[in-house]
Amino acid sequence: MRAAFMYGAGDVRIDTVPDPVIQQPTDALVRVVTTCICGSDLHPYHSMPAGEASPMGHEFIGVVEETGGEVSTVKRGDLVIAPFAWSDGTCEFCREGLQTSCLHGGFWATGGIGGGQAEAVRVPLADGTLVKAPVGEDSELLPHLLTLSDVYGTGYHAAKRANVGPGDKVAVIGDGAVGLLAVLSARQLGAEQIVLMGRHKDRTDLGRAFGATDVVTERGQEGIAKVRELTGGHGAAKVLEAVGHMPAYEQAIGVVRAGGVISRVGAPQYEDAPVGFASLFGANITLTGGPAPARAYIEKLMPDVLSGAVQPGRVFDRTISLDQTPDGYAAMDRREALKVLIRQS
Amino acid sequence: MRAAFMYGAGDVRIDTVPDPVIQQPTDALVRVVTTCICGSDLHPYHSMPAGEASPMGHEFIGVVEETGGEVSTVKRGDLVIAPFAWSDGTCEFCREGLQTSCLHGGFWATGGIGGGQAEAVRVPLADGTLVKAPVGEDSELLPHLLTLSDVYGTGYHAAKRANVGPGDKVAVIGDGAVGLLAVLSARQLGAEQIVLMGRHKDRTDLGRAFGATDVVTERGQEGIAKVRELTGGHGAAKVLEAVGHMPAYEQAIGVVRAGGVISRVGAPQYEDAPVGFASLFGANITLTGGPAPARAYIEKLMPDVLSGAVQPGRVFDRTISLDQTPDGYAAMDRREALKVLIRQS
Repeated sequence: MRAAFMYGAGDVRIDTVPDPVIQQPTDALVRVVTTCICGSDLHPYHSMPAGEASPMGHEFIGVVEETGGEVSTVKRGDLVIAPFAWSDGTCEFCREGLQTSCLHGGFWATGGIGGGQAEAVRVPLADGTLVKAPVGEDSELLPHLLTLSDVYGTGYHAAKRANVGPGDKVAVIGDGAVGLLAVLSARQLGAEQIVLMGRHKDRTDLGRAFGATDVVTERGQEGIAKVRELTGGHGAAKVLEAVGHMPAYEQAIGVVRAGGVISRVGAPQYEDAPVGFASLFGANITLTGGPAPARAYIEKLMPDVLSGAVQPGRVFDRTISLDQTPDGYAAMDRREALKVLIRQS
Repeated sequence: MRAAFMYGAGDVRIDTVPDPVIQQPTDALVRVVTTCICGSDLHPYHSMPAGEASPMGHEFIGVVEETGGEVSTVKRGDLVIAPFAWSDGTCEFCREGLQTSCLHGGFWATGGIGGGQAEAVRVPLADGTLVKAPVGEDSELLPHLLTLSDVYGTGYHAAKRANVGPGDKVAVIGDGAVGLLAVLSARQLGAEQIVLMGRHKDRTDLGRAFGATDVVTERGQEGIAKVRELTGGHGAAKVLEAVGHMPAYEQAIGVVRAGGVISRVGAPQYEDAPVGFASLFGANITLTGGPAPARAYIEKLMPDVLSGAVQPGRVFDRTISLDQTPDGYAAMDRREALKVLIRQS
């Protein structure tokens, strides 16, 4: 089969590799129908040392081709959504809805498991991992359903971890796909005011369509002052940080209200950060967030996607074939595309 | 009057200074009946540069001697408890119970306001700050009530911010007075298991009396392994960090369960700390806490103190006079005393 591999910064190629096969009785073999490129795929695209090839992609919808003997919840022919982490669905963390900490789970494209930017994927622990979608593989809803693999669940996680609820004043940092879907999620959860911080008009326009009440294009101290002014002078009680770089963290500290919450879902590209009296402690700020247990949210978020009440797939603004994947990375890297959808032919 | 001043590290003196007087119509003048030395007073005792004199003390109970014309909730002769921050009681933060972020409030011993380790204190914003205690100044309950100024409220804040509730597995880092009262608070809130990390047997014994189910004396990786083993292998869901030094933060990261909470109430003696994928983010750890709004908890915690259901004042293991205050600092610094009570003659 064909699959995307990264060989180093800026170097993505489509290789032909052996087809995956069932290895464990809990495996399913899934033919990928649609996948996409994640903002987080750009981190190695910027910094990966040249050398070994790494499979890519962690968001996909596909059709089950074959299942191991112990798989019972999905069967051949089912259209399934794969969350960005695979998990057993039975351990104590899965039962609590924290599948990204599954005791037996893991992540795509690591440890001998392939990536989603491929023609097919061996899915470990299929019963715990996959969720059947009640549509056909030609459904126009597929782009929207695909966001349940990661970006929509991740935006939703940001809002849930911040405990966004009716009447809240929320600031969202970052106008990437996750930030925009954090806006949509905050709106779904009843936020009254949603200030989106972002500089790309086409993206912030989509943010307004998703429910942002205000857009702040300024950065740094100017942006902080603007957000604080918009939110009554003392900052936003809930800040959703959907970037992962240090300036976004600093922005979050700047705009959060005393007693408020900073919820991070952009994978931090730093290890140490200010958390002392002057940043978090003195004003009783809570720092929360992490990798979204997308699996936990799929069933909850799917009905509104199926009904058309929300259209999270609007974050996809370019569609390519698997062979065009290297161009897709380049387009996202140059910010010519917000998020690239890959359709298998 | 006499009052304690710190002139530099290790240098506390009792000076005679002018009596405080009413300056604002919202002030009250309080004659201090009992006060104490806080673990946080030891931070400047270790590091304060020599030079100017700083008034000391932020925990006191006293008798109202005089009130300004606008004070209505306390009157001459009332025995009152002062929380460690003064606050107006009416701003948006006070109304939310975050009096440490009061828009018009502040802290004792700063900005021209005296400290509690003195014969008398001018209390600004008396209506918002002081809480009347329904006992006489000779009551045996005074040491217990005095903990409502800070340490008990601070321990309680740690547990509240971590959302400790029935059935929880809690780890408490630090066997100082705040850590011990975090144990007591976690027990009050229904925690099932409370693992106290501390090395001083007399203190951890009091911790057991307050409700600790386990004591771990080991530090570093050994201590972390012990706590994880005691709490089912994956760590404690709620970690109350009552120290404020970096090793305690690292200990908290080590013992917290995936998806869990680290609640800090020991004023951090660092600004930057690990918060990235390997520490907080990857396992969806929440970092919360800050200076306790002790004022918010006084009325809530007082009934159990008055009834004797809890005896938080057991953290005081030495009683001295105001003139002996320098010796009190030295005793706490040498760990000969857990917490020193100062009774006015």
